Amino acid sequence: MLTDSMYPKSFASDNHAGVHPTILEAIASANHGDAPAYGDDSWTSAFEDKAKEVFGAEAEGFAVLNGAGANMVGLALMLGRYDAILCADSAHIATHEAGASERLLGVKLMTIPTEDGKLRPEDIKSRLGGIGNPHESQPTVVSISQVTELGTCYSPAEIAAVAEAAHESGLRLHMDGARLANAAAFLDCDLKAITTDAGVDVFSFGGTKNGALAAEAVVVLDPSLAPAVPFLRRQSLQLASKMRFISAQLSALLTNDLWRENASHANKMAARLADGLADVPGVSLAHPVQSNAVFAVLPPAVAETLGGRYLFHYWNEQAGIVRWMTAFDTTPENVDDFLDDIRKAAAA
Amino acid sequence: MLTDSMYPKSFASDNHAGVHPTILEAIASANHGDAPAYGDDSWTSAFEDKAKEVFGAEAEGFAVLNGAGANMVGLALMLGRYDAILCADSAHIATHEAGASERLLGVKLMTIPTEDGKLRPEDIKSRLGGIGNPHESQPTVVSISQVTELGTCYSPAEIAAVAEAAHESGLRLHMDGARLANAAAFLDCDLKAITTDAGVDVFSFGGTKNGALAAEAVVVLDPSLAPAVPFLRRQSLQLASKMRFISAQLSALLTNDLWRENASHANKMAARLADGLADVPGVSLAHPVQSNAVFAVLPPAVAETLGGRYLFHYWNEQAGIVRWMTAFDTTPENVDDFLDDIRKAAAA
Amino acid sequence: MLTDSMYPKSFASDNHAGVHPTILEAIASANHGDAPAYGDDSWTSAFEDKAKEVFGAEAEGFAVLNGAGANMVGLALMLGRYDAILCADSAHIATHEAGASERLLGVKLMTIPTEDGKLRPEDIKSRLGGIGNPHESQPTVVSISQVTELGTCYSPAEIAAVAEAAHESGLRLHMDGARLANAAAFLDCDLKAITTDAGVDVFSFGGTKNGALAAEAVVVLDPSLAPAVPFLRRQSLQLASKMRFISAQLSALLTNDLWRENASHANKMAARLADGLADVPGVSLAHPVQSNAVFAVLPPAVAETLGGRYLFHYWNEQAGIVRWMTAFDTTPENVDDFLDDIRKAAAA
Amino acid sequence: MLTDSMYPKSFASDNHAGVHPTILEAIASANHGDAPAYGDDSWTSAFEDKAKEVFGAEAEGFAVLNGAGANMVGLALMLGRYDAILCADSAHIATHEAGASERLLGVKLMTIPTEDGKLRPEDIKSRLGGIGNPHESQPTVVSISQVTELGTCYSPAEIAAVAEAAHESGLRLHMDGARLANAAAFLDCDLKAITTDAGVDVFSFGGTKNGALAAEAVVVLDPSLAPAVPFLRRQSLQLASKMRFISAQLSALLTNDLWRENASHANKMAARLADGLADVPGVSLAHPVQSNAVFAVLPPAVAETLGGRYLFHYWNEQAGIVRWMTAFDTTPENVDDFLDDIRKAAAA
Repeated sequence: MLTDSMYPKSFASDNHAGVHPTILEAIASANHGDAPAYGDDSWTSAFEDKAKEVFGAEAEGFAVLNGAGANMVGLALMLGRYDAILCADSAHIATHEAGASERLLGVKLMTIPTEDGKLRPEDIKSRLGGIGNPHESQPTVVSISQVTELGTCYSPAEIAAVAEAAHESGLRLHMDGARLANAAAFLDCDLKAITTDAGVDVFSFGGTKNGALAAEAVVVLDPSLAPAVPFLRRQSLQLASKMRFISAQLSALLTNDLWRENASHANKMAARLADGLADVPGVSLAHPVQSNAVFAVLPPAVAETLGGRYLFHYWNEQAGIVRWMTAFDTTPENVDDFLDDIRKAAAA
Repeated sequence: MLTDSMYPKSFASDNHAGVHPTILEAIASANHGDAPAYGDDSWTSAFEDKAKEVFGAEAEGFAVLNGAGANMVGLALMLGRYDAILCADSAHIATHEAGASERLLGVKLMTIPTEDGKLRPEDIKSRLGGIGNPHESQPTVVSISQVTELGTCYSPAEIAAVAEAAHESGLRLHMDGARLANAAAFLDCDLKAITTDAGVDVFSFGGTKNGALAAEAVVVLDPSLAPAVPFLRRQSLQLASKMRFISAQLSALLTNDLWRENASHANKMAARLADGLADVPGVSLAHPVQSNAVFAVLPPAVAETLGGRYLFHYWNEQAGIVRWMTAFDTTPENVDDFLDDIRKAAAA
Repeated sequence: MLTDSMYPKSFASDNHAGVHPTILEAIASANHGDAPAYGDDSWTSAFEDKAKEVFGAEAEGFAVLNGAGANMVGLALMLGRYDAILCADSAHIATHEAGASERLLGVKLMTIPTEDGKLRPEDIKSRLGGIGNPHESQPTVVSISQVTELGTCYSPAEIAAVAEAAHESGLRLHMDGARLANAAAFLDCDLKAITTDAGVDVFSFGGTKNGALAAEAVVVLDPSLAPAVPFLRRQSLQLASKMRFISAQLSALLTNDLWRENASHANKMAARLADGLADVPGVSLAHPVQSNAVFAVLPPAVAETLGGRYLFHYWNEQAGIVRWMTAFDTTPENVDDFLDDIRKAAAA
Repeated sequence: MLTDSMYPKSFASDNHAGVHPTILEAIASANHGDAPAYGDDSWTSAFEDKAKEVFGAEAEGFAVLNGAGANMVGLALMLGRYDAILCADSAHIATHEAGASERLLGVKLMTIPTEDGKLRPEDIKSRLGGIGNPHESQPTVVSISQVTELGTCYSPAEIAAVAEAAHESGLRLHMDGARLANAAAFLDCDLKAITTDAGVDVFSFGGTKNGALAAEAVVVLDPSLAPAVPFLRRQSLQLASKMRFISAQLSALLTNDLWRENASHANKMAARLADGLADVPGVSLAHPVQSNAVFAVLPPAVAETLGGRYLFHYWNEQAGIVRWMTAFDTTPENVDDFLDDIRKAAAA
């Protein structure tokens, strides 16, 4: 087995990267004296204030430990016992959270096939036929991912249209924002423009893939839902006892737009990689590059050669699709070296 | 409201303390380059090796995010759909995990009243009458806490006796070891002596209350159970993506017996506090001091005066019992200052 | 093994009895032609009307298949994900429903020791200390049993007092009325007096132990809760497809006070048995006889002799308590024969 | 609203029919004297013996209350906490059990699109890519329906092929046999040929749609699984207290092949209906008629005219597909009258 240090820069995931120095500093500087546990501390208050600054006065931010946890806490707020979630069939909650939705929430995921990972208003409207029928799970929440699992982004107007379709039928809108920062950076807009202003009810804001050690937030925009979060967060195993160290990470990301700096850089590195692929024979893009993910279609032999040297995921082995991700610390040289190797492999 | 910095040293909980410098260093030094996510990294391998060193070759250690998470993952390994857990009625899983056992595991807690937080073999044997009766939840796991919620410790022989009683009846033994280090320090024994050698099947090893930022482990001694942990850990929202930073904390604690150094110090501070109380009129101990917790019985007025100045928990308001905890960073001066204030309050 | 026919009349449970002839006739007479499934039939409408007649215009009755099912559907209406139920530690939901509350509802049962199976207002008030604490399950429902598991009855005033205590603290009141008919018969009051008029929010009304084949009802008095029943009933596996045959049983019981006739008779037989025990040396009553259950304290040898010939349950073997139940079809001769055998066994 | 009696024979479902006279007699004749509750009675023993006669000596039959209940008990036997069920996307457990699989079992349904409601070996093999990946639910059970929701039947060889594919990969095979009798009648084989002999591990055998009042069975062929049934049945709210009346129904169906008589008749009526449709212009069959269901494609106006007079279900409104079902008590005249009305509507 190759050890960590034997690999060049990983293109497998933005969570292969380490911690951004500013965030590590924030952790270290929170390490002074005592602080009440479980969030009754000044670092957590500061994060809560930051959340209101960034997402609007009605936003209540709650720090949690990981992305699946943020999704489960946020979704649990809006779901009863016989409910269903409408989501893309590529949604992380449907494919990569080990059945947490079914076991922890006890609800059905009504998954919808999509080309680009994005739901449209008509996707929602066409799945509501069972409402009122006691033999069927009742859809009450639409969950979308921004960035999607395919690296694409919803525009603010697209989110608003989905929100409207959901709300018109009495459903709420959840957003899995594990890479929300990358979306706002790509769209060149505020975080608020694609959450609060677009009609989202509850969303997660991911820190870990954007340079944090382990820090995500559940942000609640419907004030009737917020009082339940502390109970659900505790019960869902997402409450850190030494909370100050989680809150400090989130505050650091939300200070001086560090979130945007990190996300923009990662996005640029993905764009550089995609641009460089343009002239590689036999290699094409499976999806438009709108974040820090490049989905490339490769001949099997090329994929194999590269896989012997680089860490990355096969997304769809049959279709020859691989996923290459960049991170806040991916350098232009990392990308160019990788492109060199891709070109060599393709030429062979 | 008092802010963090307005308080003197907290006696509320060992999780009010910050991070031990060695552990913060371990985190910082893990922050070099990339590492595969979710535990496929060399820091995690190193922790797994340490776990075998400390707990025996059959021990499989799995890093998780918090204590309730460690309990839920560990217990889930051993429980079917109609099972019950036998535990003390003071057990953390029964009282302070927000019903996670019922919601996430779906099982009944058959709670047993105790004087000192410790189960005895006869407690187990007397609760097995419903075995085989399909109208009753079936006890399959005994869960004990070492240190108990009342600050007391089981001796190795006491654990072995409980393990034997459980095993004789086909039950498994789980140990909530959120403060396992404090127990081993008090008993002046190895961690292995009160886990592996005493017949425990699955236990948690707490790092956070012993100087870590956020790091606990589930340790599995029954090799037939270990293969399920990765799935249950992921589904239970306890899998860190940047795992190396969790593993590095656990390794640091298990290196050069840092765990013991921290725990011994905290225990000594509790003993110093308890010793100092001996001559305070009207103040007595509710339980023997066998770890870093002091349960004191106070006149209400004394408790009120102290509560205006110090952070600590009322354990049983009616009985006038308060809980004072010390941590790895509690100083003799902190204790002596506190004792001065206690004496003054008691004299008033 | 003894076969069914080798036993004399069973005193083990009112569900050892068969079906009352009037109810069997009601089933047979519902067997004409087709009827829409799942309750869209005229027999079910008729039962729903009967329920309003008997329990008040606000009462919505829903037919289900068994008592545990009625409890789980009724309780699910009122419980969120981090909630707890306050109930007596002898409650059927706590002891004899195989952990359905924990698995199907995912909530904690906060059980309260009682002498007579009945909760008092102070039992409720003393268990509310954890409200608002995110580390603790939140009590939101009080569940009482009428008749209790110990055969005792709450007076209407006692129920009202419990309801008031619950409502004052924002909790709802559930009643397990598996033997509600026996309670109303003992108290010589309407069914409405101990449910609707006493402040109960949701209750079950048991038919099976009172002469039905298999028929219970969930009755909802809070109109905000009723719309969820069809979904929860279906999901909880309590929806009969050929519902007319369940509804017809419930209607038969509610017509011409058949419920009272059956329950009164069973109660009288229990009273006859209790009266007859008065002069049996060494035999005493463990609880007052207020329904169709007699809890007797017997010398072990007497219990053994009787157990060789009669079916009944040992309630508490250590304390020498047995439970003898009568049914709608227990005859005075059955009781007198049993008394003869008890006397003989006691004399031996 | 039309009342029950205003409709002609229903073609909506076989559960619109009443109870077969022989089964009602069996219920009445079980109503003699007392019987131990919960299945410790001679009628239940008789049913258990019948189950062995019909399904083989290794078969353990357990009576339950309804079809969804039979599925949930049977599936729960074979599923752990992070498991998934592979099934057709038309499967009853996926579409019409109100999310019971997700809430009660806590598992993911990996649904597979099919043309005819039947899974093939390659459907199974192509869905096993996530095995061993802790981020994904682990498929451990394949569930097929015989008859399928589309009225089609698996041949014995087709079932055996699915069983082999499942077993080869370590999965178990469950069969939803709500209409198992109709399948055996159509295939002109024993019940054993399409269950025990074909490699099924656990299945349900439906009585209700075949003339019972309310009676289904869970049949377990893997002896290692049977001991858990009593606990899961009780906890899943599927245990009748007066079990003899459920067991008597099942025994009646299994005696003198009443199950086949009823199912054959219903199948013949469906065939008669399908045959009659052959010459109706504008009306065609959506699926081959292999049981007691006819799926017809109709012009909207024809469907509307018929819907004003007959009870039946629109299966797919957009595609103009309706479902017409026959029952044990559908007469040739019922079918011919219906055909007359269909012809008139089609001509209009």
